[in-house]
Amino acid sequence: MKKYCYGICFLISLAINILFSIHLYVGDGPNQEISCRSSLTWSEKAAAEAEAVAAISCSGHGRAFLDGSISDGQPVCECYGCYSGTDCSELSPGCAADANSGDPIYLEPFWMQNAADTAVVISGWHRMSYEYADDPMMSPELDKYIRKLHSVAGNAITQDRYIVFGVGSSQLLSAAVYALSSQNSSSPSNVLASTPFYHLYKDQTRLFNSKNFVYRGDTNSWQTNNTDVIEFVTSPTNPGGELKKKSVTGGKTIHDHAYFWPQFTPIPGPSDHDLMIFSLSKLTGHAGTRFGWAIIKDKDVYDKVLNYIYLANAGISKDTQLRALKVLKVAMKADGKPFFEFAYNQMSDRWNRLTSVFSKSTRFSIQRRHPLHCNFFHQTRQPSPAYAWVRCERQEDNDCAAVLKAGKIIGQSGSTFSAKDRYARLSLIKSQDDFELLMQRLTELVSLENHNIEIM
Amino acid sequence: MKKYCYGICFLISLAINILFSIHLYVGDGPNQEISCRSSLTWSEKAAAEAEAVAAISCSGHGRAFLDGSISDGQPVCECYGCYSGTDCSELSPGCAADANSGDPIYLEPFWMQNAADTAVVISGWHRMSYEYADDPMMSPELDKYIRKLHSVAGNAITQDRYIVFGVGSSQLLSAAVYALSSQNSSSPSNVLASTPFYHLYKDQTRLFNSKNFVYRGDTNSWQTNNTDVIEFVTSPTNPGGELKKKSVTGGKTIHDHAYFWPQFTPIPGPSDHDLMIFSLSKLTGHAGTRFGWAIIKDKDVYDKVLNYIYLANAGISKDTQLRALKVLKVAMKADGKPFFEFAYNQMSDRWNRLTSVFSKSTRFSIQRRHPLHCNFFHQTRQPSPAYAWVRCERQEDNDCAAVLKAGKIIGQSGSTFSAKDRYARLSLIKSQDDFELLMQRLTELVSLENHNIEIM
Repeated sequence: MKKYCYGICFLISLAINILFSIHLYVGDGPNQEISCRSSLTWSEKAAAEAEAVAAISCSGHGRAFLDGSISDGQPVCECYGCYSGTDCSELSPGCAADANSGDPIYLEPFWMQNAADTAVVISGWHRMSYEYADDPMMSPELDKYIRKLHSVAGNAITQDRYIVFGVGSSQLLSAAVYALSSQNSSSPSNVLASTPFYHLYKDQTRLFNSKNFVYRGDTNSWQTNNTDVIEFVTSPTNPGGELKKKSVTGGKTIHDHAYFWPQFTPIPGPSDHDLMIFSLSKLTGHAGTRFGWAIIKDKDVYDKVLNYIYLANAGISKDTQLRALKVLKVAMKADGKPFFEFAYNQMSDRWNRLTSVFSKSTRFSIQRRHPLHCNFFHQTRQPSPAYAWVRCERQEDNDCAAVLKAGKIIGQSGSTFSAKDRYARLSLIKSQDDFELLMQRLTELVSLENHNIEIM
Repeated sequence: MKKYCYGICFLISLAINILFSIHLYVGDGPNQEISCRSSLTWSEKAAAEAEAVAAISCSGHGRAFLDGSISDGQPVCECYGCYSGTDCSELSPGCAADANSGDPIYLEPFWMQNAADTAVVISGWHRMSYEYADDPMMSPELDKYIRKLHSVAGNAITQDRYIVFGVGSSQLLSAAVYALSSQNSSSPSNVLASTPFYHLYKDQTRLFNSKNFVYRGDTNSWQTNNTDVIEFVTSPTNPGGELKKKSVTGGKTIHDHAYFWPQFTPIPGPSDHDLMIFSLSKLTGHAGTRFGWAIIKDKDVYDKVLNYIYLANAGISKDTQLRALKVLKVAMKADGKPFFEFAYNQMSDRWNRLTSVFSKSTRFSIQRRHPLHCNFFHQTRQPSPAYAWVRCERQEDNDCAAVLKAGKIIGQSGSTFSAKDRYARLSLIKSQDDFELLMQRLTELVSLENHNIEIM
C-alpha cells in the first residue's frame, strides 16, 4: 500500500510540476502572458504611476492628473464645475451652468476609449536639442501627418504649400499679421475683421502696438480705397459657425479655420487660401497642448512667419509635437471615420437637444443653420457649431448675458465679439456634465418664460 | 529499493513544487517580481514602444526618437554632427567641429542614468483643458517646485514674488520688455544691453517694432539723462560667463539669469532683482521642451507679463509643464547634490581641457575666469561658463570666426553679440562627441601655430 502511495503521490506531484512549468513558461491567459513576458525596464515606474492616477475615482465628475496637488501621497481629484468633495460626488445645488469658455472637453471620452493608442511615453532624454535632425524647429513626421490629415478630412490643400507650427493657433494669428504687414512704419497696415469676431484679433494687435499694423475694426465700416488691409476671415465664424468669404476687395487675408472640421461644419471642399490657420485644440480637443499650424502659399510670407516663431520663442515644445503626432495618428485611423463620427455625433446630439429647448422659446433665439453637402461624410448635413449665438428677443433684454446669468447660465456678452450685448455666446464643447447642466438651466429658463405667458 | 526510489523521487518532486510555488508567488529577484506583478494595461504599449526606440543602437553617436523618420517600420538613428550611416558609426574624415549653437546636450548622460525617474507617461486625455483647477495657465505644483529649486540652489529669492511661465526664456524676454515699457507711444522706452550680449534682445525688439519701446544699443554709449530705460543685465554674461551688475543709473532692469546655476558659475548668494528670468534649457539641458520662468516683484508688472503670455498664446503647453515638473523633481533629489555635481563636473572637466590647449597658444586667448565662493558647493571655485569667448590676438586675424573656420571649427562671430569680430564664441555645452572633436581641432590649430613658430 505504502509503495502505491509513494507512486501515486509522486505522479500527482509530477503532474503539479508539469502544470507549474506550463504556467510559468506559457502563462495562464492573455493578460498574465503580456505581463510576465513584458520586459519593460525604465518606463515601467512612470507607466504604473500614470495608471494609478488614471484609476483614481472622481465619480465621472472630475479627473486626477499626474501633476495635480498631492494629498496623502497621491494627486487629488480636480472636480468639474459645480461638483466638489474628495471624489467630486457632491453637486452644489443651484450652481450656475458655465458655458463661457471654449474648453473642448467634449472629446475626452474618445481619448479615454482609445487610451492604449494615444498614451505617450517621453524619456528623460527625449529631444533635448533645439533642433530636429532635418529641421531647426519642426518635426518632419508631424508635418507629414498634418498634410495627410487635411487630405483625409478634405478641408485644405497642402500640396506645394509651406507649413509652420505655432503655440496654438493664437500665436500664429499675430505671426501672420506681422508677416503680412507693411514694413513701412509711416503707413501701417490696417487690420480688419467682420463682426461678430474672436476678440483675440483685436486684443493681440493692440497688445503688440506695432508701427507696422493697426487695428481698424469692422470690415463693414471700412469704406476707403486703401488696399493695405489684412482681413481676418473666420470660417466657420466664432461665434455663429457660418462659412465665410472675405469682405474687403483687395488686401490680404488670414483664414482662421480653427473650426473648419467635419464635426462642426459640412466641408464643401478643400480650402485653398493664401494663409490658413488650424489648431489641435478644436480638432481633437487638446487645448492644453497648445498646438496650431499655418498653411502658407507664398515663400516670402512663410519665411516671415517662421522668423517670427524663431525669434519669439525658438520654436515650440518638442513634447507637444510628439503628443500631437500620436493624437493625429489615432484621429486618422480608418480614414478618420471613427474619430470624426464620434466628434460629429457628440456635437449633433447636443444641437438636437439645444434646438428642441430653444424651439419652445420666444424670448431667446439662436442662429439659423443651413444644410450643405459635406464632402467628408458624403451627405448633406446641418452644421453643428461649437457655440450657440443667442439673441434675447425682448426689447428690454438688451444685455443678454445678464439675462442668462440671472437664469444661472454663464455665457459671453456680444460685446466680447464686438457685437451688440443683445447677443451672448454659449459654449457647447465643454464636458458632458457642463452641457447637461446647461440644458437643465436653459429648460428652467424657457419653462419659466412659458409659465409667465400662461399667467399673463 | 523501488520503495526508496519512489520516496526520494516524491520528495525531490515535492521540493521542486515548493520551489516553483515560491518562484511564482514571490518571484526570483526584484526585476522579475516587478514584471510579473505588473498589471499595466493602457500604458504598456506606449512604454514598450518607447523602450524599443531607446534600444536602437546608434553607436553612441546619435539617437533614435519616437517621432523620428521611419524606415522598415521603426525610427532611424539621427546622427550627431560628423557621424553618419544607419547606426551613426561612420565618422566623416575632416569634418568641422561645430561649436556654434547653445544646444545643451552635455547633460544627456545624466538623464539616461536616471531613466526610470525621469520618464513621463502622458495619457490621451491628460489636461485637455486650457486651465488647471487652481490657475488659468500655470501648474501650481510646478510653481511650488520652482520655488523649492531656487531655495536648494540658493540662487534667487522667491518668497513674496510672482512667477510666470513662458515658452522658453525667449518669450519672457519680450514679455518683460512689453511689461516694463512706456504705455505712451509718443515717447517709447529705450532698450539697452551691455556689449557683448545675446542677440535676441536686439532681434526681438526690432521684430516687434513697437511704439512702446525701441532698441538703443550698448549701455556704454547711453549718455543722456533720459531714465526711461529698460536694461538687459545678463548675469552670467553670454558669452563670457561673468557675473554682472546693471550699468545705467536709474531705469528698469531685466536680469537674464539663464546661466546663473552652480554648474556655470559660483553662486555668491541669492539674486533678488525686480524681474529675473530663468530657463530649463540651460539648467537641465531640456532646450527642446521650451520652458522658462520669470520671477517678479511688482504686482503690476506681473499682471502685464501674465496678460502678454495669455494674449500671445493662452499660456504654455501642459505637456511641457508636466515634463518640467518631473525633470525638476529629479534634479532636486538629495538637495540637488547629484545633479549639480554631475553638471559641474562635466563643465569643469571641459574647461580644464580647454585651458590646457589655449595655454599653449599665443595666437588665441580666452576669457579670464575669477574664482569666487559658491554658496551651493560651499567652496571657492572657478566659473565654468557655457561658452569660450575666444580672442584672435594676431593683428591680421580681425575675423576670428573665419580664422577658426579655416581650422575646421565653427563658432559664432563677435558681431553676433554686437562685439568686434576679433572675438568668436565657442559652445562648450554640446554633446561629448562635439566637444571631443572641438578639442581635436583646437589642438591641431594650436600645434600648427607652434610648428610655424619653430620653423620661423
